This record gives sequence, structure tokens and C-alpha cells, in this order.
Amino acid sequence: MNAPDPRLSINQATIKHADLATALRVTADAGVQAIGLWREPVQEVGLATAARMLTDSGLRFTTHCRSGFFTMPEGPARRASIDDNRVAIEEAATLAAAGAPGSTAILVLVVGGLPPLGEPGARDLVGARERVRDAIGELAPDAVAAGVTLAIEPLHPMYASDRCVVSTLGQALDIAADFPADVVAATVDTFHIWWDPDVLASIARAGAEGRIATYQVCDWKTPLPADVLLSRHYPGDGVIDFASLTDAVVATGYDRDIEVEIFNEQIWATDPAVAVAVAVAGFAASVSPHLPAGARRA
Amino acid sequence: MNAPDPRLSINQATIKHADLATALRVTADAGVQAIGLWREPVQEVGLATAARMLTDSGLRFTTHCRSGFFTMPEGPARRASIDDNRVAIEEAATLAAAGAPGSTAILVLVVGGLPPLGEPGARDLVGARERVRDAIGELAPDAVAAGVTLAIEPLHPMYASDRCVVSTLGQALDIAADFPADVVAATVDTFHIWWDPDVLASIARAGAEGRIATYQVCDWKTPLPADVLLSRHYPGDGVIDFASLTDAVVATGYDRDIEVEIFNEQIWATDPAVAVAVAVAGFAASVSPHLPAGARRA
Repeated sequence: MNAPDPRLSINQATIKHADLATALRVTADAGVQAIGLWREPVQEVGLATAARMLTDSGLRFTTHCRSGFFTMPEGPARRASIDDNRVAIEEAATLAAAGAPGSTAILVLVVGGLPPLGEPGARDLVGARERVRDAIGELAPDAVAAGVTLAIEPLHPMYASDRCVVSTLGQALDIAADFPADVVAATVDTFHIWWDPDVLASIARAGAEGRIATYQVCDWKTPLPADVLLSRHYPGDGVIDFASLTDAVVATGYDRDIEVEIFNEQIWATDPAVAVAVAVAGFAASVSPHLPAGARRA
Repeated sequence: MNAPDPRLSINQATIKHADLATALRVTADAGVQAIGLWREPVQEVGLATAARMLTDSGLRFTTHCRSGFFTMPEGPARRASIDDNRVAIEEAATLAAAGAPGSTAILVLVVGGLPPLGEPGARDLVGARERVRDAIGELAPDAVAAGVTLAIEPLHPMYASDRCVVSTLGQALDIAADFPADVVAATVDTFHIWWDPDVLASIARAGAEGRIATYQVCDWKTPLPADVLLSRHYPGDGVIDFASLTDAVVATGYDRDIEVEIFNEQIWATDPAVAVAVAVAGFAASVSPHLPAGARRA
């Protein structure tokens, strides 16, 4: 088997049931050079310990996942969320500093859905989106101080009501436009945006504005499972055209790592080393052919 | 209980397990004035008989559902689909002529998804969309001859791969733009487009271009059921803001009937007379307050 693509990063969600030590070990053992981490397994060992473990792994750190969830109206819950986002910003900065050279301090934001039915604003999508903008405005100074980029992730419209009121890359960029590009940018995840008739134009726009914080790949396939959150697949197993999407990302000059992030019950149930091996192979077959040789950032 | 809104039309899908006779009877018995029909129950009794039954019911006919499914590459399957669409156009014309005054000859088009994985074009979304445009170009002369409006229905992006590669109202309008507005227009269904950050602008555009063929209402709620096709709810039971969407439709001058179209296993399992009664009540509570008094077309 060939060595993994040097730009491949394994997002820890792909091997969700692995603890941090296991995730770092199987990723490095596979010859993968980078990893994106999740807050829960980091907090399980504590940030300082997690940072040391990351340094010891020799892996680059690509993103910290995930924060956000700040669509609720003003009140204690909103304050708690903003405070927790500040903690997440610090975590992202610490982990980026602990990763190997080429690590990036990027915090992925899933902004949250509508308030529950029966509560004020439960049908006010426009208002919820305004509160996203307000929250990011509150957090931007913290991100600047920490040197962290907030990466708004548009989620597929099937999650618009209960998870993320930002549904398209264009909409994420419209929110980001109020802020410097190194402070607020976007997460470009194939699973969420492949269907969008404007997807190629939006990727070009994101690149021109310097706002592709991270490029994440996984595949779409139907029928969807009972829990639609877990409907992501290895690159190449579904219908997404990684050629056109990756070409569009590459054309913007994006030259950093590319994460494979998969939520899938069956993949989670496999040995994490096997899951990483299959992700490596899927990436090599579906994504690597569209990456320029030798364009890897130093 | 008050009389149903005079602009309410019951789409037959809402009472899917009722045959044509039952659907017409429970709709008329409820005091509803209009109905949208589906091809299968019409074909079950034969078109001529269905037309007579519709006339006898005294109901207006609002839409014929549904045709389309012409994303496959050239070959016998595509030819069969085009031919079947021609039959559907004739059905729509015949039923519109048989309905009460104010009936409309509208054929709803669900354009189809990607070819199955493993077949050519299975990942070519752009190509599939081009084939939609080509098919509509082939059918347009038949629609003109029959006096039928083809109403492209954008479906929610969660159906983009397996059912409908047209995912936004803007995209439907871009395809329709090649044709006269009374020949090719769009179906505006709240369930499919409520999440779209451009939804209000797209409705305004559809109205300005004279391309709102029909306005259909039902609600969105999570968690989605295991079969995401059946995730539609009575207006008012979910998160959709019928005020802003209906205001936008009304502002365009749209003054025709409004269908309640619901696919939902539990609703299908109820007595169809009960389902119609609940739809009537949901429409009265969530949609009627946003319709201008006395604006009903003669």
C-alpha cells in the first residue's frame, strides 16, 4: 500500500469511539500526517495533557471541532454558550501551537438551529441568523487575541431547523464578510454543499475572499439512515463529484490539509485503525488525483 | 366549525390511501372547493371516468401530480419517460377542463435524481440538470398545444441525489426562463424551500416573472422519520413561518388556490375525512390569516 496523501488529515469524528490517545496513535501509525480534534475527547484528558499528547504524536493539528450553537435569544443559556465558545477558542490556539509545523488554529462553528417549538422565535429563521452574526461579533475579538480563525460551517439544509440555520456556503460568506478573513471564514465540507447549484461559484468566491478555512471531504449516499446525522460515507462510496469540487478548491490556491470527517454508525463500529486505512484509500482514489503534485505547503 | 378557506385545495397525496371517489367525496363533503389529483388514482378508473367524477364533484381542479423523472441519458428509458410525460400533459388538460370554473391546467414536474451508482453520469449533477432542460424543451410544444403549464418543483436538497436535481426555486426559475411563463413555471412548496436564505427574493422573482404556477403548503418538523419522503406535516405543526412565505406569495399578486400536500404515514393511516378536517383547520390557523380578504379570483 502506498503512503497516505501528505495533505490528508483524519478528523477525529471519523473514529468517534477512539479516545484521544488511540486516535493519535492509529492516525500516526497509518502514516497520516495530520489530525482534526474534537472537544470532548480533548477535555476528557484535559487541555494541557492533550496538547502534550498531540506534540508527542508528531501530527499537524488542522481544526478544532466544534463550537457554536449560539442561536438562542439573550439570556443565561446564550451567555453560557458565548463563554463556552471562548474556552473553545483557547483550546484551538493551544492545540495549534502544540501540533507539528503547518498546524492551523481553526475553530469550526456549527451555529445552531431554531429555538424549540413552543419557545419564542421557534419559527423565526431570520432572527436566528441575526443572532449568529451577533454572537460571532462578540467572539471575534477573542479570536483575534488568540490568533484563531472561526470557521462557519454551512450544514446541509436538512439540518436547518434543529442544528444549523446557515445552509449554504454563500450564506456563511455573507456573515463572514463583516470580519477580516483571518478571523472569520468558512468550512467547506463536500457533504453539506455538493447539491448547491451555486457551489462552484461559492467556492471560487470563498477563495477569492481568502475564507476557505478548511476543506473537508466525505460522501453522500441514499437511502439516508434513520438518524440523518450519521449519513456520511468514505469518499468514493457515494455520489459526490470530488473532481469538480476539489478542482474548484485547488483553483483558489488552497494548499493546506484536507480532512476526512465521517459520521456513520457502521464506520464507528469498526476498528479505528481499519477506518483510518479505508479513509486513506478513499482519499487516495477520490481526492488525491485532483491535487497538484508538489503544491503542499511547507 | 367555520367553512374551509375558499382558496384551500386538498392535494390528493394528503389522503393517499383514498381512491378517487373517496378523495372527491371527503373533500367536497368538508366544504373544500378544490382538489389536486395524482396520476395513479386517476389512471385506476381511467381518464374519461375520472373527468366525469371530477365534474360531478363540483370541485375545482388545481394541479395534476406528478410527472417528470427525465434525468436519465438518451435511450429507451428516456424515450419512455418523455412519452409518459406527454400522456400526463393530456391528463392535466382533460381534468382542468372537467373541473369547476377556476380550474387550472398545471402539471407538477419532479425532475428526477442522478442515475444509479455504477451507471454513467451517476456523479454528474450538472449533466443531469442539463438533461432536465432538454426534456422540458421537448415537452414544451406539447404543453403549449394542450394549454398546460409545466410546473417545475424544486425539492428539498435532501432529495437531490435520488429524486430531484433541482433544489432551489431560483434554479427552477433559471430553467423556466428559456420558455414562456404560461408554459414553464414553478411549484412553490413551503416544505422544500423554507430553509433557503434566498427564499423571499426567489418568490418575489417568481411572481415578477409570472411563474408561480401553484403554491403548496405543509410543515417541516424534526426529527425526520426513517423514510425522509414522509416527513411532511399539517401547516402549523412544525417550524415553517407561513406568515412570511405567504405574505411573499400574496405580494406577487398570486390569487389562485393553495394546496395542502402532505406525505406522512400517520396522516395516511387516519380516516381521510379526519385528515381533510385537520388540514382545513391547520390552513385556517396558519395560512388564511395571511390571505387578503376578498382577493379570491372569480
